[in-house]
Amino acid sequence: MLLVVSSPSGAGKTTLCRRLRGEFPNLAFSVSYTTRKPRSGEVDGKDYHFVDKDTFQEMIARDEFAEYAMVHGNLYGTSVAAIERALSAGRDVLFDVDYQGGEMLRKRFGEEVVLVFILPPSIAELERRLRARGTDDEATIARRLRVAREELRHYHEYDYLVMNDDLERAYDALRAIYVAQLHVRSRMEPKARRVLESAGPETP
Amino acid sequence: MLLVVSSPSGAGKTTLCRRLRGEFPNLAFSVSYTTRKPRSGEVDGKDYHFVDKDTFQEMIARDEFAEYAMVHGNLYGTSVAAIERALSAGRDVLFDVDYQGGEMLRKRFGEEVVLVFILPPSIAELERRLRARGTDDEATIARRLRVAREELRHYHEYDYLVMNDDLERAYDALRAIYVAQLHVRSRMEPKARRVLESAGPETP
Repeated sequence: MLLVVSSPSGAGKTTLCRRLRGEFPNLAFSVSYTTRKPRSGEVDGKDYHFVDKDTFQEMIARDEFAEYAMVHGNLYGTSVAAIERALSAGRDVLFDVDYQGGEMLRKRFGEEVVLVFILPPSIAELERRLRARGTDDEATIARRLRVAREELRHYHEYDYLVMNDDLERAYDALRAIYVAQLHVRSRMEPKARRVLESAGPETP
Repeated sequence: MLLVVSSPSGAGKTTLCRRLRGEFPNLAFSVSYTTRKPRSGEVDGKDYHFVDKDTFQEMIARDEFAEYAMVHGNLYGTSVAAIERALSAGRDVLFDVDYQGGEMLRKRFGEEVVLVFILPPSIAELERRLRARGTDDEATIARRLRVAREELRHYHEYDYLVMNDDLERAYDALRAIYVAQLHVRSRMEPKARRVLESAGPETP
């Protein structure tokens, strides 16, 4: 399963995803490639694969990205190879990408992709949270709110919507979506077939 | 939402459903009509609506059942009116019916219906549990196992499969399916629209 979690900045996505990975070690986090410079403390290969623009462009040309996007002048992308490695090791992969990334993943991996959007209770509340964080200047907050409105307009492209008005409830919902998806028929088919086979041949 | 939970007798469905209703009071249990005689302690209108065969046949003729089935010579059915009453009161409804009932509900109510099948770990384990209950004679156990095999063959008609090899895990999965389904886009659409409207008109 490729679990995509999108949300406007400040809606609580990072906290929710970190907790989900903590509870389900089988859920791998996709390490993106980026042309952005490492920030202090960021580790190459763990936080991101840091590459230069030429390398990134060559990877695009070789169709090596399952999804990629330009964000504030920097390129970010997820390699197909990394996803396929995780899936063939029997792991699920968690993605923190926007609706464009989700759409590209859905096109490439079809029904394996589960799209979840985290909704803030309101734009006013989102603004309040961004200010409370105290990490962004006015211009950044204005930009984040503009992007948030844009992202919200794409909610109908998602399979599930989770309102984060209460962190515990939102986590319970996100967790439920992951656990439920582990039990959709297609994923449980091998187990069901084993039980059926344990029934032996039909006895009329 | 109409949540249908099916399983062979002895797979733990009754325990799981009771617990789900205990945790989610908004989940109503559908009270079936039946032509079977009340057992001692059973209350008309609570356990079942007890009716005679003529009444039941008239209800069938008037198309009043969303689903009905003959089980061991007795008729059992769920009235459309009761379901619609619950849904318009904003409640979800839990059904304990087999694959035929699930199929009839799906035909009538479409995507509102969520079909969950509880799998026993194996037929041998199912047999062990039925014997451990000590309530059934040999003929009844043999019949239940025959019916179990038949029901298992229909697992591919369900949306979700839950293996009950561990009660806590099985409950966590059933609960997750219900909670996740409360968050599918179509059910969350009104909330999402409200957040979007709180964003105000588009600001270019």
